[in-house]
Amino acid sequence: MSKEFRHVIYDADGATLRVIDQRYLPTRVRWFTVYDADTAYRAIRKMIVRGAPLIGVTGAFGFAFEVRIRDMMGEDVNADEIADHITSARPTAVNLPNAISRVLSAYMKGGWREALREAIRIMEYEEESSYKIGIYGSELLEDGDVVLTHCNAGALATVKYGTALAPVRVAMEKGKLIHVIATETRPVLQGARLTTFELVKDGIDTTLISDTMVGYAMYKGLVDKVIVGADRVLADGHVFNKIGTYQVAILAKKHGIPFYVALPISTLDLKGTVEDVIIEERDPNEVLYVRGRRIAARGVHVLNPAFDVTPPEYVTALITDRGIIRPPFRMALSDLVRGNV
Amino acid sequence: MSKEFRHVIYDADGATLRVIDQRYLPTRVRWFTVYDADTAYRAIRKMIVRGAPLIGVTGAFGFAFEVRIRDMMGEDVNADEIADHITSARPTAVNLPNAISRVLSAYMKGGWREALREAIRIMEYEEESSYKIGIYGSELLEDGDVVLTHCNAGALATVKYGTALAPVRVAMEKGKLIHVIATETRPVLQGARLTTFELVKDGIDTTLISDTMVGYAMYKGLVDKVIVGADRVLADGHVFNKIGTYQVAILAKKHGIPFYVALPISTLDLKGTVEDVIIEERDPNEVLYVRGRRIAARGVHVLNPAFDVTPPEYVTALITDRGIIRPPFRMALSDLVRGNV
Repeated sequence: MSKEFRHVIYDADGATLRVIDQRYLPTRVRWFTVYDADTAYRAIRKMIVRGAPLIGVTGAFGFAFEVRIRDMMGEDVNADEIADHITSARPTAVNLPNAISRVLSAYMKGGWREALREAIRIMEYEEESSYKIGIYGSELLEDGDVVLTHCNAGALATVKYGTALAPVRVAMEKGKLIHVIATETRPVLQGARLTTFELVKDGIDTTLISDTMVGYAMYKGLVDKVIVGADRVLADGHVFNKIGTYQVAILAKKHGIPFYVALPISTLDLKGTVEDVIIEERDPNEVLYVRGRRIAARGVHVLNPAFDVTPPEYVTALITDRGIIRPPFRMALSDLVRGNV
Repeated sequence: MSKEFRHVIYDADGATLRVIDQRYLPTRVRWFTVYDADTAYRAIRKMIVRGAPLIGVTGAFGFAFEVRIRDMMGEDVNADEIADHITSARPTAVNLPNAISRVLSAYMKGGWREALREAIRIMEYEEESSYKIGIYGSELLEDGDVVLTHCNAGALATVKYGTALAPVRVAMEKGKLIHVIATETRPVLQGARLTTFELVKDGIDTTLISDTMVGYAMYKGLVDKVIVGADRVLADGHVFNKIGTYQVAILAKKHGIPFYVALPISTLDLKGTVEDVIIEERDPNEVLYVRGRRIAARGVHVLNPAFDVTPPEYVTALITDRGIIRPPFRMALSDLVRGNV
């Protein structure tokens, strides 16, 4: 996103986190204020904010604000309960429990001040790691490339730059011309509403397609590379991401198109298995209505899984803030993380 | 559709064809009257009616009404020009030129009375052939099957019964319990708006999914068979159908799920090649707006191909009104058609 534009603003004086309410984009810019655990829970649960890195940041501040208020009011603080409450807002992205576990430990060590410092560190880390993802990922892009992306893994899913869109932004800064194809990403339309909003703002040429057009765009040779974000990546390379990612990956492989997944290491879950991860099933009305208008007959059933899982055989490489990881993923990922510990 | 429900009514006295305006379904039932070439052109072009068989029928009546009016008014009749005008309304479905060519020949032989008789024969043929598709196709379905269908190839795409949905209806009549998964089918939402409308009306259990959920539904083992309709099927088995069909076919093959295409032989184009067929590119606003609400930022480009092409290697069998056709298609299709001549 252009340097002036910020959609997440931490206000140290007011002890609030102000975020753009993404449900109204691109037609209206409305702000929402997170100032305690409940407002953080609501912001995440109702998708006022979304995107794995951003919900981690929002949850961390919500925790820090809550323990600060309780402490200042002299109330009992059941930190585990607060942590569990915020974590329960959405089950699939691992950044949320990862971030909450960091602020919880910080609180145990140093009280609310340390929890708040940790939340700020998480926010700074996400901004910095997005930029690093951009640096590494931009090496994979060539001048003139058309990059297809699904959902929104851009600035609006993070603090700045994005995960999947960071390589596009950095490649453009380096003088490579990149065109983006954005899938609209039903049911919540993050691609249509958010990805087009932030790319057009940045002057990046963007083409919107319906989710039905991915295969045909590839068949017609219109797509050079696919880059998507992730909500959780397991040690063996299984990728949990927005519903529809799995089929985009299959179609990319079928057409010989590289399929990249961009993520900060805060999105890694090296202990979980595919069976452990809960795929959130959301309100049927997300499918039955589009922007308030009903699109289907009464009496129909609905499925609304918010995520799917892409097996590692479809993933050409992971673009992380510590470098490009190629298969086999298990060893490479464990080296990557160990390098840090 | 239940026996009482008709959405195409030929009124011999008034010399009109009354059709439900499908743009308003499922929320409103409004009627539109075709009484000349222009109203037929408009009904087809604006998707007041859609579905390959139904646009053939509508075009045929429009032609017959037009030559009748001109003849009765003592005006010159340039029958070729009228035929070309109606045919130009939409380029991809072959039923339209096929039907127009039949009424044009009839007119040349026997004037407007013969053209009108031919239009009626086309309508009766489409109703009858839909039922035959149902009879043949129902043999492929087992009690308890879950059938995924894309777009609307139901009664609303034909005169009655449908193409893809006819086997489901006949199987149900025979006492087999079938559950249908309908993809919403962006951008025009024929699956959400029309397929759910007609199936719920008939008491057939139906689940709506977003187009992003096809792969995951298959991965989870929720789909036993896929049946879609067609706008044009070539001699070698290439299938032109609603955008998104191609990727559903790839996903079905990947998951070992049979992929059937249901069509009357009026949808065959035994002379054309893949390169010959024009894939209609429609108004970008179909992608940018959903039911009148804008979903994307200003300044974005749009692709809006209305159809795609599925190679024969993905097609398990064609369900026609003359029987089930399995690969290799070229010989089987030419036998099928020759059998009739």
